Amino acid sequence: MSDRRQFRDLASPAAAREAVDSLDLSPEPERVPLDEARGRVLAERIDAELDVPGFDRASVDGYAVRASDTFGADEADPAVLDLIGTVHAGAEPDVEVRDGTCAEISTGAVLPPGADAVVMVERTDETDAGIAIRTSVAPGDRVMVAGADVAAGSRAFGPGTLITPREIGLLSALGVDTVPVRGTPTVGIVSTGDELVRPGGDLHSEAGQIYDVNSYTIAAGVEEAGGEAVLYPHAGDDYDEMERLLVEAADECDLVLSSGSTSASAVDVIYRVIESEGELLLHGVSVKPGKPMLVGRLEDSAYVGLPGYPVSALTIFRTFVAPAIREAAGLPEPRTATVEGRMAVRERYSEGRTRLMPVGLVEAGDGEADTLVYPVDKGSGATTSLVEADGIVEVDADTDYLAEGERVTVQLFSPDVRPPTLLGVGEDDPALSRLLDRLERPRYLDVGSRQGRRRLRDGVPDVAVVSGPTDRDVDAVDLGGWTREWGLVVPAGNPAGVDGLADLVDRDLRFVNRATDAGLRASLDAELDRLANRRATERRDLTAAIDGYELTVKGFESPARKVLDGAADAGLGLRATADTLDCGFVPVGTESVRVLANPDRTDKPGVTALERAVESALDGAVADLDGFEA
Amino acid sequence: MSDRRQFRDLASPAAAREAVDSLDLSPEPERVPLDEARGRVLAERIDAELDVPGFDRASVDGYAVRASDTFGADEADPAVLDLIGTVHAGAEPDVEVRDGTCAEISTGAVLPPGADAVVMVERTDETDAGIAIRTSVAPGDRVMVAGADVAAGSRAFGPGTLITPREIGLLSALGVDTVPVRGTPTVGIVSTGDELVRPGGDLHSEAGQIYDVNSYTIAAGVEEAGGEAVLYPHAGDDYDEMERLLVEAADECDLVLSSGSTSASAVDVIYRVIESEGELLLHGVSVKPGKPMLVGRLEDSAYVGLPGYPVSALTIFRTFVAPAIREAAGLPEPRTATVEGRMAVRERYSEGRTRLMPVGLVEAGDGEADTLVYPVDKGSGATTSLVEADGIVEVDADTDYLAEGERVTVQLFSPDVRPPTLLGVGEDDPALSRLLDRLERPRYLDVGSRQGRRRLRDGVPDVAVVSGPTDRDVDAVDLGGWTREWGLVVPAGNPAGVDGLADLVDRDLRFVNRATDAGLRASLDAELDRLANRRATERRDLTAAIDGYELTVKGFESPARKVLDGAADAGLGLRATADTLDCGFVPVGTESVRVLANPDRTDKPGVTALERAVESALDGAVADLDGFEA
Repeated sequence: MSDRRQFRDLASPAAAREAVDSLDLSPEPERVPLDEARGRVLAERIDAELDVPGFDRASVDGYAVRASDTFGADEADPAVLDLIGTVHAGAEPDVEVRDGTCAEISTGAVLPPGADAVVMVERTDETDAGIAIRTSVAPGDRVMVAGADVAAGSRAFGPGTLITPREIGLLSALGVDTVPVRGTPTVGIVSTGDELVRPGGDLHSEAGQIYDVNSYTIAAGVEEAGGEAVLYPHAGDDYDEMERLLVEAADECDLVLSSGSTSASAVDVIYRVIESEGELLLHGVSVKPGKPMLVGRLEDSAYVGLPGYPVSALTIFRTFVAPAIREAAGLPEPRTATVEGRMAVRERYSEGRTRLMPVGLVEAGDGEADTLVYPVDKGSGATTSLVEADGIVEVDADTDYLAEGERVTVQLFSPDVRPPTLLGVGEDDPALSRLLDRLERPRYLDVGSRQGRRRLRDGVPDVAVVSGPTDRDVDAVDLGGWTREWGLVVPAGNPAGVDGLADLVDRDLRFVNRATDAGLRASLDAELDRLANRRATERRDLTAAIDGYELTVKGFESPARKVLDGAADAGLGLRATADTLDCGFVPVGTESVRVLANPDRTDKPGVTALERAVESALDGAVADLDGFEA
Repeated sequence: MSDRRQFRDLASPAAAREAVDSLDLSPEPERVPLDEARGRVLAERIDAELDVPGFDRASVDGYAVRASDTFGADEADPAVLDLIGTVHAGAEPDVEVRDGTCAEISTGAVLPPGADAVVMVERTDETDAGIAIRTSVAPGDRVMVAGADVAAGSRAFGPGTLITPREIGLLSALGVDTVPVRGTPTVGIVSTGDELVRPGGDLHSEAGQIYDVNSYTIAAGVEEAGGEAVLYPHAGDDYDEMERLLVEAADECDLVLSSGSTSASAVDVIYRVIESEGELLLHGVSVKPGKPMLVGRLEDSAYVGLPGYPVSALTIFRTFVAPAIREAAGLPEPRTATVEGRMAVRERYSEGRTRLMPVGLVEAGDGEADTLVYPVDKGSGATTSLVEADGIVEVDADTDYLAEGERVTVQLFSPDVRPPTLLGVGEDDPALSRLLDRLERPRYLDVGSRQGRRRLRDGVPDVAVVSGPTDRDVDAVDLGGWTREWGLVVPAGNPAGVDGLADLVDRDLRFVNRATDAGLRASLDAELDRLANRRATERRDLTAAIDGYELTVKGFESPARKVLDGAADAGLGLRATADTLDCGFVPVGTESVRVLANPDRTDKPGVTALERAVESALDGAVADLDGFEA
């Protein structure tokens, strides 16, 4: 752990930006086929090499004439011309229009020699004497002359033009079929850490293995920023192997990112490789999170070391690396990169370094001014922060706090991120999961009923879903609810013959509980109070006798899964869960699950959609909500 | 042309939307690898199948302890514990922590059996007696328990979730390596018309051939909307071939779009194929442009016929088809699909059908409220409208006019379109082309000096670039300029021995002129006035004697190219052009090119950037501006 001193002299965020800017990660320009050019950026100016149209072109269906033959013609006194032939689009004219004659012509066809105007068919009649022209036209009428749209030699596009469908249109018109574009920066991603397993691989949790989150997350970020990501195999924490991989990545890519383990030994190894095979420009940045960021060069390639925790890695990537990739690709900052909002709560801060604070968004009204911003701080190690936060607010090192209502700019994690249509908090429940499936982009944080009530009281979420007894009510609009049967989930067939809560106290059974935030836990405790009352004792005397009462797990299925694993004889849970997991079930009681809405948001579309979903489920209109009971 | 009657009963835009909505173009869901899932949309809910983390995990580097061993410990009176081993991240613990002992542990490592908390290394010391723990910890401190981040069985994502890097992060954490996503609708594009040639092919302009603009443009639009475009070879106007291609496209795709020729015969053929092989739901929509839109079914596939002109085709695609493709792909409407602005000029309208008016955008200040919107109406046949317009404003059939300053919503042609940083209008000039290359995203409309002055007077553009004599000045800020030498461009070596303007009058030479909007033309006419004066006659007597004086072409290189083609003996042009095209040059005069800024916009970044570019070019700082003379 001797490398810990590396991070004592932290660089400012500005110095980190400067260090990244000093790296050259621009690839060579290249030529791509027109049909693959969308989203690319022109590397050079394109001048028109031909006239568009390339010939004098009829703008309407009608007759090609000499304008002088029509002078004075009108409805009452048409000019009658001899029809000498027809010119179709895509064919070379085989007639010449002389005085007193005309040729039928299609839109887009070449104006035949001798003609200098076109009369639209609506102003003509076919007569026995010839074509009656019922209007006068001037030379050039209904003709687009060669080069009128684009003249050969004129400037069509400047360098740096982003190619969207409309640019592809003009390039097509100019006959351009390969396009000179800025190259795509290639970004190698080397992940480190003995404990990482690629998604899809076999995971040995007992050996502390976890799935590698950063590699694919950062690769997706690289592609979103206009780069091409190259994933390298895991290096573990072995120096020689890591050196080989980093050097290979530097040979093949414009930029190398390392990411993965947070262990000091892995950081140590990377540090030594960069020092020996390249140059370290900066180690440690005065931001939270992301202190252990490295910037340097590795052979001829640029190098940035990202922190190990996913939210930290994505935050540092988004703040310092993505702009450099976009710059190298020639792409502009996305218009949707930021959102304005105001703080939903007061947030204190006083750590003396810039904070890149993960935040969530909730729409509290119609305008952008009504976007509320709340901090999401579950610890950087939580991957759920990735999807519970929408972006980051940069808080200066010398800011002590952000006031409630203060305006802030949120840098979205990616341009495609949008505020959820509904922010719900509270109890977890299998029927609720299915209800949420019927809403568009809801966000639901299963913080338990107690936290749910508290947060609703603070005014941030749209709804709280709560169950179980409570001491303290909350000012809210009840949107409806359902009941659920709870009890003890036991192995299939109930081999131990568990009969009820009293067995947990009186027999030698291993129990798994839920945490105190869960409504289910409150129902359990209320039931234990009743049992204690019947036995004329205190609840704590009973709970002290329950093996595992203090062993709490997070999700509504978690106790049942412990039972399935053989780690427990009984778990606190729902009948629906026991059914889903093919376990046995010992019923204890029923409790009501209520959906409570923030009184200011009952008209919000996401809230009314949830209300309708609850109603239609109660009506039995939806077959798949089979665990649903009114 | 008998099918013209098809379009008499035009459907309303709402009916057209309804008809398109009634088509089913949703493909089957599919599974894609996680690293290809960005930008896709989840087809179903994903619940966590495992706990994250999968084990009780150390959150810091430090020592795994039994919390009860640390009770009462502080800086002054540390608890000293025996070190019994080390647990690394990614390794299974091989020690058990008992009373009075501890194990060194890395961040991310498995908490060894017996331990219930971790003390961070900063609060410890290695001593001869053992590890000195200088703080008390509670059970669970610095430990993330199994499932604390995500509990197995909990709802991770709902159906319809757009997959961005952060979703890829949580999917990685859950070990998901293939993702169930909505299918990508495949869209076949069949272009029709004998005159169309794919970009890159040989173009026979004399036979009225033009490059196919719509196929690649619409294909790019399809991909932008989340579909997969399939281009079919050109069908020409042959019924059997077109039928074969349309049926093949219908067999292979969810949606077939036809596009291309505007000729009545091509429309006729398509109409008959759809009627015989499918069902026509709607023909003709009451919108301008785009009247000849078709909606129907072709075998089991959806079918939409787009108008032939590129701007019309892209407008109808964007308005009616792109939303259906996004819907089928499950993608939301892009947040950047529209921009608010106000009309820069009054625009009259009274055609009794909805108008999808192509407009350009210009930033007249800092806010969105300062975005000016001006109509771009060059006729639908002009492909340059594609890049000169940024989007469309939908004007109701019963709106008579849009007032200057009226607020309008612009539907951008594509979400990536942005207002240019500079809107310039006026003279075309080769030195100006190179200056513009140094600006970011400028838009320059070469409408000539006369129109340039007029538009600057109307207050729409940021700058006008003008040259040549004028009767009427404009209130503007002069940002600088340069002079250019003009005269007659002749074949290399000047084989006809052209000596000056008088030769055009006196000798039998074929001349090519510029249009009256060009500053160069005004300079020519002024010089002819002087010649007429010397000869005591009128200019019109001279011009009548010049063969080709009335033959005007569009671009600054166009007359010289006519000379190169052998179609003329002399053309009005610049010495710089003659040099570029290796022609001869007969000097006549010099004229000043001035860059004039809108007085209200001199601080606009694009304007100051242009001013700097002019200055640095005049300083001779830029080698490539060799045609540049102060």
